[in-house]
Amino acid sequence: MVTLDKIYHAAYVLKNVARKTDLIAASNLSENGNLYLKTENLQITGSFKVRGAYYKISQLSEEEKAKGIIACSAGNHAQGVALAATKNGIKSIICMPENAPIMKVENTKKFGAEVCLGPGLYDDAHDKAVELQKETGATFIHPYDDEDVIAGQGTIGLEILDQIDDVEAVIVPVGGGGLISGVAFAIKSLRPSCKVYGVQMEGAPSMANSFRDGKLETLASAATFADGIAVKTPGDITFEMVRKYVDAVVTVSEDEVAAAILALMEKQKLVAEGAGAASVAAALFGKLPIQNKKTVCLISGGNIDVNILSRVITRGLVMSGRNTMMTVSLDDRPGQLKRVTSIISDCGANILKVHHDRGEAGMAITKCFLKVELETRDQSQIEEIKETLTREGFSLIKERG
Amino acid sequence: MVTLDKIYHAAYVLKNVARKTDLIAASNLSENGNLYLKTENLQITGSFKVRGAYYKISQLSEEEKAKGIIACSAGNHAQGVALAATKNGIKSIICMPENAPIMKVENTKKFGAEVCLGPGLYDDAHDKAVELQKETGATFIHPYDDEDVIAGQGTIGLEILDQIDDVEAVIVPVGGGGLISGVAFAIKSLRPSCKVYGVQMEGAPSMANSFRDGKLETLASAATFADGIAVKTPGDITFEMVRKYVDAVVTVSEDEVAAAILALMEKQKLVAEGAGAASVAAALFGKLPIQNKKTVCLISGGNIDVNILSRVITRGLVMSGRNTMMTVSLDDRPGQLKRVTSIISDCGANILKVHHDRGEAGMAITKCFLKVELETRDQSQIEEIKETLTREGFSLIKERG
Repeated sequence: MVTLDKIYHAAYVLKNVARKTDLIAASNLSENGNLYLKTENLQITGSFKVRGAYYKISQLSEEEKAKGIIACSAGNHAQGVALAATKNGIKSIICMPENAPIMKVENTKKFGAEVCLGPGLYDDAHDKAVELQKETGATFIHPYDDEDVIAGQGTIGLEILDQIDDVEAVIVPVGGGGLISGVAFAIKSLRPSCKVYGVQMEGAPSMANSFRDGKLETLASAATFADGIAVKTPGDITFEMVRKYVDAVVTVSEDEVAAAILALMEKQKLVAEGAGAASVAAALFGKLPIQNKKTVCLISGGNIDVNILSRVITRGLVMSGRNTMMTVSLDDRPGQLKRVTSIISDCGANILKVHHDRGEAGMAITKCFLKVELETRDQSQIEEIKETLTREGFSLIKERG
Repeated sequence: MVTLDKIYHAAYVLKNVARKTDLIAASNLSENGNLYLKTENLQITGSFKVRGAYYKISQLSEEEKAKGIIACSAGNHAQGVALAATKNGIKSIICMPENAPIMKVENTKKFGAEVCLGPGLYDDAHDKAVELQKETGATFIHPYDDEDVIAGQGTIGLEILDQIDDVEAVIVPVGGGGLISGVAFAIKSLRPSCKVYGVQMEGAPSMANSFRDGKLETLASAATFADGIAVKTPGDITFEMVRKYVDAVVTVSEDEVAAAILALMEKQKLVAEGAGAASVAAALFGKLPIQNKKTVCLISGGNIDVNILSRVITRGLVMSGRNTMMTVSLDDRPGQLKRVTSIISDCGANILKVHHDRGEAGMAITKCFLKVELETRDQSQIEEIKETLTREGFSLIKERG
């Protein structure tokens, strides 16, 4: 059973292992200054996972430790377990699907684990881990459905209560439910008046559905770029704890999470992964009754692939009017491109790309399409450019964004 | 004169205004675990500037406060002064050049300043500020050449010594020299054995040149994307302090800073602006004798335009082999594109863009160029794709990167 004693014990054990991550007032994200960020993206290994994994491993018997540990993960759990095992002085084998991002594989190795890359997806890697576990007698470290793991994550709840007075709500990303189980238990035990909310992705609402229907449900698939909280079935222990200690579980869309990631980067100078930014997305997009309430958003991790981050930024720029694509229909004769580019630069926008398109089906033979990608200041500048182009006799075909 | 007393006093005055920003072990940036980051990018207003500005304003007489303050800046100083004035309960006018990023103008307004946008560049805005100062009798807040401002920035030095034992070197970005003057004075006063190093951009080495030549020098221009440290002439006070308390001033290139920004994002989950990442660039690219020394890199700020950040990421991806452009020469007949894309996907790379080019001068009439942009894992995957394409009879024309 998870107890407050166990969580306090975990906090003691983790004292020199996990960082007591900063709690930062997100004054630039909220109008009324009521939003705070618990920055587990700045935790060593880039996510909270090292807390639960380390505490779990530290509680094994000497005999168990001698046999080593095994885990299966494509992401943060892998890195957390690898470092936790190494810091406990024992050996670890982590099974990962071969399509796991190379950076995560490399980091897991760097933290001291033996990585077993197998064909197939997560489920195949999991089967492999179970098989290896039977062969070796090593202890399997579950990513969430384990009381010691939950107690380790619960130390974040203690820290939040220590770092902020009068907190009224805490928003926590939910995958399998280990993080929120520990945090909610700690917070409800010590400050019952504080609300604890869970957030999942629209594309992977396993805990949200289970919570709503009052019974454990399994999703056929869990597709989202927030891979840290893409879990098909909640844990048995965690589901019971969420039912008991959590006030609501809501969902957010990928676009909302992308906007939250961009806002965290621009306004708070923090890099969050999709799962990590989900709590902030729930706050920014009004999914929860937290108006005028002192609210902590738990940023669970920051391990986002830079290629994905780059796409998120681009989408965010388009959504906020700072990048746009225009297609202008031109008479195909000298001087036309110059006129268009003059109008654009007179309006103060920066041209990133120009592409001429001739001979598309349905196009008059003397016409061509000019596609321009622009760096703009805001939506009103885009409108100004469009109006000027139209006034000068050009017709706009379609736009992105 | 800047004294330790004054810096301690500033620390007391700033107690409830500036954040005591976290000092983070950059275990993922350094092999031997000796690198630490002082995260002033996580300061309110996104940079250290609020410290000096607030302390300066707090020391004005009641009569001076009643007349308000004036400053001139296109960047972090504007936001720092605006918030500092508002928190001191007095009014501020900030002159900004009209080409200042709209986000910085908006933030300066949001922090309570009246913004005076004038035509021209920084120098014109400065002239306007001087003129307004004469008209109104308001106090002009210099961005760096002022002892109270320097004392305010010096509080960072006190915090570093409080947050880490046995620090052996501190690396500080240098523009006008206010930050490093305060930090170096505090550190050399309390821990003389600790080295203090300054970093500037190759494109704006005013303090580096002046330090080397032992006399104040002015640059004709100071062009760099690290606008926070693009200053043409160091201050009189700051130059003397740097001469006395700083061990060396080195320079870094734009590419080195871009790589440092990407490394901070990927490995430490922090967003730094060019100026802020310069200290990390100096450490990562071996510009200073800090091997095996416990070293703190001061990240001075995180206010980077997202469009710039997006370009930095792209450049970093290309440099590290995770994005590449290939041009393949094809016989212009059906099935060729399919063969190329099959090879690429069999190698496990992701195709981002495809572009056919026909009829370029010098090209055989039956040939066409296929340009593909790929998301790749690393340089070795790129080589594998190229070798396979060549082996299958395709010729590669040129590549980006």
